Amino acid sequence: QQKGIRGRLNILFDAMEGWIVVLVVGIASGILAGIIDITSDWLSDLKEGYCETAFYLNRRFCCLGYDDEQDECREWITWNSALQARSVAAEFWTNYLFYIIFSTLFATTAAYLVKTYSPYSAGSGIPEIKTILGGFVIRKFLGWWTLVIKGIGVCLVAASSLCLGKEGPLVHLACCCGNIIPRIFPKFRYNEAKKREVLSAAAAAGISVAFGAPIGGVLFSLEEVSYYFPFRTMWRSFFCAMVAAVSLAFMNPFRTGKLVLFQVVYDRDWHAFELFFFALLGVMGGLYGALFIRMNLKIAAFRQDSWLRFFSVHEVVFMSVLTSIVSYLNIFMRVNPSELVANLFRECVGGDYHNLCNHVNHWKPTLLLLIASILKFFFTAITFGLKVPAGVWLPSMAIGACFGRAVGLTVHAWHMYNPNFWLFASCAPEGRCITPGMYAMVGAAATFGGISRMTVSLVVIMFELTGALTYVLPIMITVMISKWVGDAFDKEGISDGWIRMSEYPFLDTKEEYVYNTLASQVMTRVDDLIVITATGHTLDSLEKLLNSVDYKGFPVVHNAKDMLLTGYISRSELRYAIDKAKKKPGILLSSPCYFSGNLPILDDSIFIDFKPWMDQTPITVSHKFPMEMVIELFKKMGLRYTLVTKKGQLLGLITKKDVLRHLSIMYDPNSSEDDLQENL
Amino acid sequence: QQKGIRGRLNILFDAMEGWIVVLVVGIASGILAGIIDITSDWLSDLKEGYCETAFYLNRRFCCLGYDDEQDECREWITWNSALQARSVAAEFWTNYLFYIIFSTLFATTAAYLVKTYSPYSAGSGIPEIKTILGGFVIRKFLGWWTLVIKGIGVCLVAASSLCLGKEGPLVHLACCCGNIIPRIFPKFRYNEAKKREVLSAAAAAGISVAFGAPIGGVLFSLEEVSYYFPFRTMWRSFFCAMVAAVSLAFMNPFRTGKLVLFQVVYDRDWHAFELFFFALLGVMGGLYGALFIRMNLKIAAFRQDSWLRFFSVHEVVFMSVLTSIVSYLNIFMRVNPSELVANLFRECVGGDYHNLCNHVNHWKPTLLLLIASILKFFFTAITFGLKVPAGVWLPSMAIGACFGRAVGLTVHAWHMYNPNFWLFASCAPEGRCITPGMYAMVGAAATFGGISRMTVSLVVIMFELTGALTYVLPIMITVMISKWVGDAFDKEGISDGWIRMSEYPFLDTKEEYVYNTLASQVMTRVDDLIVITATGHTLDSLEKLLNSVDYKGFPVVHNAKDMLLTGYISRSELRYAIDKAKKKPGILLSSPCYFSGNLPILDDSIFIDFKPWMDQTPITVSHKFPMEMVIELFKKMGLRYTLVTKKGQLLGLITKKDVLRHLSIMYDPNSSEDDLQENL
Repeated sequence: QQKGIRGRLNILFDAMEGWIVVLVVGIASGILAGIIDITSDWLSDLKEGYCETAFYLNRRFCCLGYDDEQDECREWITWNSALQARSVAAEFWTNYLFYIIFSTLFATTAAYLVKTYSPYSAGSGIPEIKTILGGFVIRKFLGWWTLVIKGIGVCLVAASSLCLGKEGPLVHLACCCGNIIPRIFPKFRYNEAKKREVLSAAAAAGISVAFGAPIGGVLFSLEEVSYYFPFRTMWRSFFCAMVAAVSLAFMNPFRTGKLVLFQVVYDRDWHAFELFFFALLGVMGGLYGALFIRMNLKIAAFRQDSWLRFFSVHEVVFMSVLTSIVSYLNIFMRVNPSELVANLFRECVGGDYHNLCNHVNHWKPTLLLLIASILKFFFTAITFGLKVPAGVWLPSMAIGACFGRAVGLTVHAWHMYNPNFWLFASCAPEGRCITPGMYAMVGAAATFGGISRMTVSLVVIMFELTGALTYVLPIMITVMISKWVGDAFDKEGISDGWIRMSEYPFLDTKEEYVYNTLASQVMTRVDDLIVITATGHTLDSLEKLLNSVDYKGFPVVHNAKDMLLTGYISRSELRYAIDKAKKKPGILLSSPCYFSGNLPILDDSIFIDFKPWMDQTPITVSHKFPMEMVIELFKKMGLRYTLVTKKGQLLGLITKKDVLRHLSIMYDPNSSEDDLQENL
Repeated sequence: QQKGIRGRLNILFDAMEGWIVVLVVGIASGILAGIIDITSDWLSDLKEGYCETAFYLNRRFCCLGYDDEQDECREWITWNSALQARSVAAEFWTNYLFYIIFSTLFATTAAYLVKTYSPYSAGSGIPEIKTILGGFVIRKFLGWWTLVIKGIGVCLVAASSLCLGKEGPLVHLACCCGNIIPRIFPKFRYNEAKKREVLSAAAAAGISVAFGAPIGGVLFSLEEVSYYFPFRTMWRSFFCAMVAAVSLAFMNPFRTGKLVLFQVVYDRDWHAFELFFFALLGVMGGLYGALFIRMNLKIAAFRQDSWLRFFSVHEVVFMSVLTSIVSYLNIFMRVNPSELVANLFRECVGGDYHNLCNHVNHWKPTLLLLIASILKFFFTAITFGLKVPAGVWLPSMAIGACFGRAVGLTVHAWHMYNPNFWLFASCAPEGRCITPGMYAMVGAAATFGGISRMTVSLVVIMFELTGALTYVLPIMITVMISKWVGDAFDKEGISDGWIRMSEYPFLDTKEEYVYNTLASQVMTRVDDLIVITATGHTLDSLEKLLNSVDYKGFPVVHNAKDMLLTGYISRSELRYAIDKAKKKPGILLSSPCYFSGNLPILDDSIFIDFKPWMDQTPITVSHKFPMEMVIELFKKMGLRYTLVTKKGQLLGLITKKDVLRHLSIMYDPNSSEDDLQENL
């Protein structure tokens, strides 16, 4: 009946529905990101002053029409002039104070909102999204409430002086859209697989709006967050990411009309000898990542287990005051990180950003940059993990960019004072040879790589972020070195670290597990399981069974003697079948229940057939099956359990939890192998 | 013993080895592509004349230093001036004749080389590479000989006037490098999985050098050719593709110093109303693809089955003469396709390419473009499939670009003559509104999409090819429409069509198979199988068994009565075990052979234990397992066979061939279901 024009139209609509969903998700993510960008910009500028003509305008919009370099913008009132500070010292202290007050106010509000209304809004959300896409359910994590509170919170945090970014949370917010919007569409509402596809696409859209990198977003979704990424998903994700990027460009929050955030306009070539410095930056990035992750996780674990956990808002207040006091004194720490990164990537042509292009004295900015990168490192490592919505990507990039620019300035000075040194032989005799902005870019890529351990997606994000195809190779080599160095310490990025610390059930699809364990060594043995026999049960006995244990499901065997596997019934199906049977007239609590294929030839009002509710063909593996293959099965088929049989006989059950426990034992050489031995 | 510094160094080298292999493969692919580009350019120019100062220079290098627009290049001697043709007619005919002669000479040489030395060099090679990466072995397809002959052949074909491209063959050649180079490294020589990883990377490098699109190459490898793409592969592929692109840029065959082939320098915005025309181009592209594939496959099938197959060289001669005669008369058909595409993408600023920017008379170029696109369509559909090394991507792009530019010119003329028409309300009152070059770009993407049915990778390739991020959205929408329209006719791209026609065993990972068939309905039943019993065989009886049938492997059961599955032994393992046993002293042909775990307690010189050679834990599925899941298992675990059991008892065997047959029956509604019914 699905033929004819009507059938075709139905099919068409059916095919379109998926696209419509991702279209709406993309648009929503783009608009949301635009609003957040505008709001956080305004709040951030509020720390320094306000717009006289319209208080709701940020500095850039307030001063629209003035040339940044020459004219002074009269509509923008800094706090010192508002309070009519007379002396230079008074000016300084007024601004300093307002900076601290506003910054702390913003951070505290965010912390209070999170604590009171939505604890799930804390952190970047990336570890949780990875876990959710891995098949684990965290209720309300992607709901309306999280969206609203995290949306407000992220604006506040980004505007405060805390060393945190808004890129991770943007991915979380996009995923909230990707969770809420499909609820309108019945086809998506009840289909977990389809929901997850939309979430993958939303994650791509999140990166797309966070970095202006649609292709990078798709690759991020593929590389980092998505557990199962069928090809169709990729195309949809790409569409979603594109739509989000275009929606954001349409909102035009930065009034540049461009998708490229930190556009690099120079395309001066790099020289082969510079690869040495880039490699150095790569090593530094890897060390940074390893150190940061270890330190951050240690602090977070301490925070979780100690008295500190009761004072989450106080902690934020303290950190905010401390950060503001220190940050205001160093220009590279005072400005907000996205402005900082943009300026550090720039070339010294037609402008001097933060005194970076001072050709006479290189040492002052170099020193300031080094101090900024070191202080930012400690502040970020302590701050990330506070109960506010915040990510760690952009701060990492800022740290790397500071360090990279410092290295670049040093090399530049070296070349200026010793142009005939053998290293600079390949430089052109006239003009600048070293581009410190490029070092900043490479440094940012190195630290970003060190902390996230992303590879392809990171290179593509950097490429889309800067629009500079010329520097893909240096960036790639640096990212590679950074990853190698980082992996030499710990094989996990920051989000995997948090997943492990939070003990989320997550199976990394990227790892390959090669061990000589057999399925029978990991399984829960049949003696330790509650097994249902195909015959011999009554409604009453089943009900009692359900009430006495809380297992998620039960294997069904032919009889207790031969233990031949008949099927598997989940707890919820059994519950449902029992409830349904009870409503049937003529059914008593003592009515016999059958799970077997060979039903007695009786009136069906007297017995209950549970067969339809049972999985009659559960996936089984032989007891000699190597665990490596079992893990592959779990990863690739998205299983939650598998039954272990030997010649048809049930030997045991392996659940996802068993697999995870097995892996954690395998990984952690310090834990005793007792757990494992028990099952042998 | 692997600890300490030495162990660490070993591990490091082990980790590096994979990178070194892809590095070498990338460099080799880049250099190869550079040589081919230079050679084919030179040969192509030879059709028109030669360089007086050095015969081995192509026109561009010969005339280096002359300004293309103003000066006449005196060193470049066209054939008419070489032969001192006096009249205009004589000039024309001399050039015409030389064009035909050279073109035919090149094509014929290529055909002869392929026929005589390397039949595998014919075609694009993409279908075969997809099949090889799917796990099927085609011996010598990626060998030295293919590399040499296809390398020479592709230069000749690209230089001839045949409507064929060199992009597909470049991927094949890169894969040849990816097959030959790992042979030097022992770790790769004997590891099929690692070999396939390198091949995936090589495919990425191929696209990278063919289109100057490293990221597109990786996505192509992921989307199109690779069967199994673990994450590690992606990063390596990216590296390989980058190295190849940089090597090619280093060779600098076009002397532009750029990776971007058809660089688009304009970034004029597109208007919303233009989306209608882009959608139109998308529909055309889809129709083109569907029509082309059907026609091309029909012609190819006819060629394969009729007397034509004995005249492969003659056919090439005939087609070459015909194409040359027609092509010379239309400037858009005469120039080589990559030059054509580059010029069609260009904007009319500071140059008039092929009279495209004639602002007075739009109709002449429009008509010529339309004629070119139609004739090219027929020529390409007939020519692709001839026994010469050739691809169909660039010709498709050229067809689409011609058609797109024609549409663009028409819209442009429309706007020029009716600037106040409501459709053009969003145009700026002054200056040009329509950019015909953009239409050419979109048209090229549409036909490329129609023929290949690629999605993400195609958009990224177009983006890297032109360097124009501004037009990603129109291109994306067009590609999407083109794919939808094309898929409405047939769900396969040109390479999948060829795979089906050539009957290669290939399982498409992108398809989802949802049917209600059970494993037991597809399996070869145990009655039709040769089964080995665990006990009761002698060396003699096994040998006879091997000689009497040619099955690839045999299930082993406990005994003929209970049919309990013990394992599976492949033909080659059995062969090996028998041969080894024979060499053992004291073994007679009548010695008993055991496959079971319960060996008799006897002197081991009297019986032979086959257990070590047998797969003791073959992957089994229940007889009620849905076929859909079986297909998933085959696809995801790369199985070649699985055994069907019911409570441990062997019921049948499903091989990859059975799965493919099952799918082809499912797909083709015309074929009778007899084959399927038989197994019920």
